[in-house]
Amino acid sequence: MVSSLRLHSLTSLFSSPSLLRPPLLLCRAHRHKLSSPPPRTAAFSSQTASASTTENPKKQTNQDQKVITPRSQDFNAWYLDIIANAELADYGPVRGTMVIRPYGYAIWEAIQDYLNVKFKETGHSNMYFPQFIPYSFIEKEASHVEGFSPELALVTIGGGKELEEKLVVRPTSETIVNHMFTQWIHSYRDLPLMVNQWANVTRWEMRTKPFVRTLEFLWQEGHTAHANPEEAENEALQMIDVYTKFAYEQAAIPVITGRKSKVETFAGADRTYTIEAMMGDRKALQAGTSHNLGQNFSRAFGTQFMDENGERQHVWQTSWAVSTRFVGGIIMTHGDDSGLMLPPKIAPIQVVIVPIWKKEDEKSGVLNAASSVKEALQSAGIKVKLDDTDQKTPGWKFNFWEMKGVPLRIEIGPRDVSSGSVVISRRDVPGKQGKVFGISMEPAILEAYIKDKLDEIQSSLLGRAISFRDSNIVDVSSYDELKEAISLGKWARGPWSASDADEQRVKEETGASIRCFPFEQPQGTKTCLMTGKPAEEVAIFAKSY
Amino acid sequence: MVSSLRLHSLTSLFSSPSLLRPPLLLCRAHRHKLSSPPPRTAAFSSQTASASTTENPKKQTNQDQKVITPRSQDFNAWYLDIIANAELADYGPVRGTMVIRPYGYAIWEAIQDYLNVKFKETGHSNMYFPQFIPYSFIEKEASHVEGFSPELALVTIGGGKELEEKLVVRPTSETIVNHMFTQWIHSYRDLPLMVNQWANVTRWEMRTKPFVRTLEFLWQEGHTAHANPEEAENEALQMIDVYTKFAYEQAAIPVITGRKSKVETFAGADRTYTIEAMMGDRKALQAGTSHNLGQNFSRAFGTQFMDENGERQHVWQTSWAVSTRFVGGIIMTHGDDSGLMLPPKIAPIQVVIVPIWKKEDEKSGVLNAASSVKEALQSAGIKVKLDDTDQKTPGWKFNFWEMKGVPLRIEIGPRDVSSGSVVISRRDVPGKQGKVFGISMEPAILEAYIKDKLDEIQSSLLGRAISFRDSNIVDVSSYDELKEAISLGKWARGPWSASDADEQRVKEETGASIRCFPFEQPQGTKTCLMTGKPAEEVAIFAKSY
Repeated sequence: MVSSLRLHSLTSLFSSPSLLRPPLLLCRAHRHKLSSPPPRTAAFSSQTASASTTENPKKQTNQDQKVITPRSQDFNAWYLDIIANAELADYGPVRGTMVIRPYGYAIWEAIQDYLNVKFKETGHSNMYFPQFIPYSFIEKEASHVEGFSPELALVTIGGGKELEEKLVVRPTSETIVNHMFTQWIHSYRDLPLMVNQWANVTRWEMRTKPFVRTLEFLWQEGHTAHANPEEAENEALQMIDVYTKFAYEQAAIPVITGRKSKVETFAGADRTYTIEAMMGDRKALQAGTSHNLGQNFSRAFGTQFMDENGERQHVWQTSWAVSTRFVGGIIMTHGDDSGLMLPPKIAPIQVVIVPIWKKEDEKSGVLNAASSVKEALQSAGIKVKLDDTDQKTPGWKFNFWEMKGVPLRIEIGPRDVSSGSVVISRRDVPGKQGKVFGISMEPAILEAYIKDKLDEIQSSLLGRAISFRDSNIVDVSSYDELKEAISLGKWARGPWSASDADEQRVKEETGASIRCFPFEQPQGTKTCLMTGKPAEEVAIFAKSY
Repeated sequence: MVSSLRLHSLTSLFSSPSLLRPPLLLCRAHRHKLSSPPPRTAAFSSQTASASTTENPKKQTNQDQKVITPRSQDFNAWYLDIIANAELADYGPVRGTMVIRPYGYAIWEAIQDYLNVKFKETGHSNMYFPQFIPYSFIEKEASHVEGFSPELALVTIGGGKELEEKLVVRPTSETIVNHMFTQWIHSYRDLPLMVNQWANVTRWEMRTKPFVRTLEFLWQEGHTAHANPEEAENEALQMIDVYTKFAYEQAAIPVITGRKSKVETFAGADRTYTIEAMMGDRKALQAGTSHNLGQNFSRAFGTQFMDENGERQHVWQTSWAVSTRFVGGIIMTHGDDSGLMLPPKIAPIQVVIVPIWKKEDEKSGVLNAASSVKEALQSAGIKVKLDDTDQKTPGWKFNFWEMKGVPLRIEIGPRDVSSGSVVISRRDVPGKQGKVFGISMEPAILEAYIKDKLDEIQSSLLGRAISFRDSNIVDVSSYDELKEAISLGKWARGPWSASDADEQRVKEETGASIRCFPFEQPQGTKTCLMTGKPAEEVAIFAKSY
């Protein structure tokens, strides 16, 4: 219910500056393609998208709808077109910054709502650390400063005066967290200390891309301290597992979970666990990480406790994060040429109702029926939107809501009102195949049908993504095979026990890096693809964002 | 349920470094005062609180409990003691910054949960604007730059390089919001545009005080654009009304709602509405504001739309905000010498259960009963905490949870288990008077009783605050009367139509400012207390935070 209220005001954002025009009744068989995609050019639109021609130009086409660049033609342009046209985000005035618009933010809220509950269930409390960190803190942990110093934004003036010590705008909070932990942790009884914060962070990135890599982004960062290394390791594993479940069950993204190579480990961590997602262009997206920090920060900051034997020890720590990058991952996993495609469990709107009428005397009957359907679904906990504006044609609305990725569409026309039934279309199955006629309007029947369909779509999106992923991972046993797989745009999986220098060489020569040593390992003895020496694990290599 | 899970990990924060000691059975009549307040000194503790003596020192006293400075003795020291001892917040490493600890953050989450729903119900969508604002933006609106430029934090270095244009770390977002609105608003059909963001903001304050005024704080800022001035005015009024209801119904703070004087109006607004709360020391706290911005920012930024007649006009705007300052308001409205006192509707823990046993063979019976009671209450939606640690005495726990402001305590001992009943104590009614024996453990009966009591406490706190407020507002009809009232520490209410210079003079001579022209105005003709000329309204004068 809340969602639908939230989205109420979006309607005003959607309405376009074009003049009022009389609604058209479109023959159900064709109307789908009569008008073409979204409303107006926005900052992210690629050049190709600004052309005003459509695939299927007809008189009835609304002039304000733009085409999305086909995904196969230019993946990056397609991505930017979706973000602009679905009104997910816009560029901010400072280079590399991003404004997250209501529809994009609602997806982030769905991510937050799920994870926030899971974090609390696993014993973490939310809190808030200041974002300004004394510059000297960053220098305390050697590899941390090396990793982050090129990316820092520094405050040097405050209240009109030059500051004595420069302040870092947090790129991550391990340092300030440890500074505070030293004040709160005294004995083993103060452990484990398990907290999380939802916050903005700043990294001065040179090459930015909306959601995927921006100068400022939103995330959650969990920070924990433990009395022994086993507990810290279990915590790091527990949290990567929470992320994995979220990816599979909510975002329908079949990530591959594993451990980062030493080269790719977080600056200051002993071990980094990661979830790696395959995007529609087969590049990898690191979608979440969980770090076992060992005693690196606790030694640098002196975060100690008295153990049960009365001896002082440094705490063992973890940190873990998921960010607004995940929204980019959802777009690039499920979207197609018609636009965004959202998994029902994180869709801000799960069902859109489009009423259709030709004559003025049909209007009220159709709208009444549409309202009743809306209320019935809403009270069943389904996130539903009734698009009852008469400024747009039904065909325009079909394309618009498809472009916004709404999983299900209900169409209600005069004949449907007479027969007490509706027509239902699936976003994930195009054309007639995804369309079912004559579903009863009777609330109990319709609700059950819709819930069932939403579940089906959720599974179907995951299934499709799994097939795509699996058909694009190649098992390799030599460097040549690896190079070939990468050159075909695929992921290469092969046994690896070579050096950091070899790993670096692969990156330079192929553009692919080790995404992870996956938790799921094949059976049997393994021989390193590079050195021919025994290997304990396979690694996955891919080009990445 | 979520809350109680969230609070699970607090237990570890609470546990003190003192050694294990056997639980004491304390005779119910005295045990309440046997041990004294909270666990360990924290950064905010006032000097007076670090003394280790207690009012009632006995052998059984836990050495690690500290006294809170009496409120009547030193209000500020009392406030800081509560924040430290109830573990609400701590100082950050950068002067004037604050770390919000889990228990304090949970209060902020309760504020967010309520307001977020109300914002959406009233048609607003959440979104996110970048926090870095080009310096030139701030200079565009004349009074805005004048108001904010002394308080700015500036980023001058990014990615290792001196920036061409300094970046302001947002003190508020009207400027960047307008920059974006110009891109989204074209026609009257794009209006109203109604958004909100939950964010951190930075103001380089010289004199800081935890929650009340910190260099960085958390808030929500709503921003709207409308097609005519009436709509903008209605929106500004609607939102101050949302804040007023929140204050009365959730925080039990009987704010006085009204309009700010011209002198006190927000830098860039035509009109500012405010909710003013009377703290325990009778100083006023501005707890939330809603601004009618008129066309000030839209003219400065060129935020225009085509109206229904095809003419270009500047939009009319509002902005409105509530911050973590509200947590300070809750502390200073309801707290007493025993510590924090939380209104049930925003208490992270509404009921704490303290099991009491003497002999080891009583323990399991008591703990089993306590667990059952906990589960019954939890499944009834009550936020309940079972404090079953055996490292502290029941008396210590009583004082500790009172200090944390938990509205109700349930005590369960062996005799209660036999009789199937519990003892219930109210936080807001000290001693025997607030204690009821023999309430049945039977879930249905107990739940109903607890819910009833929580409602009663909620009303009682509000009623008490209203009495306190009303007995401390004096009607004045002359400047002498005003001065007297202020010198007695009270609020003065009197007719006012004098000049800005007169208002300034009152401030200089008495330390009091016009808090607002309250919406609720007395009947009858009015004569300005300063000039003797006719006045249309009474104003409220008070010293403030």
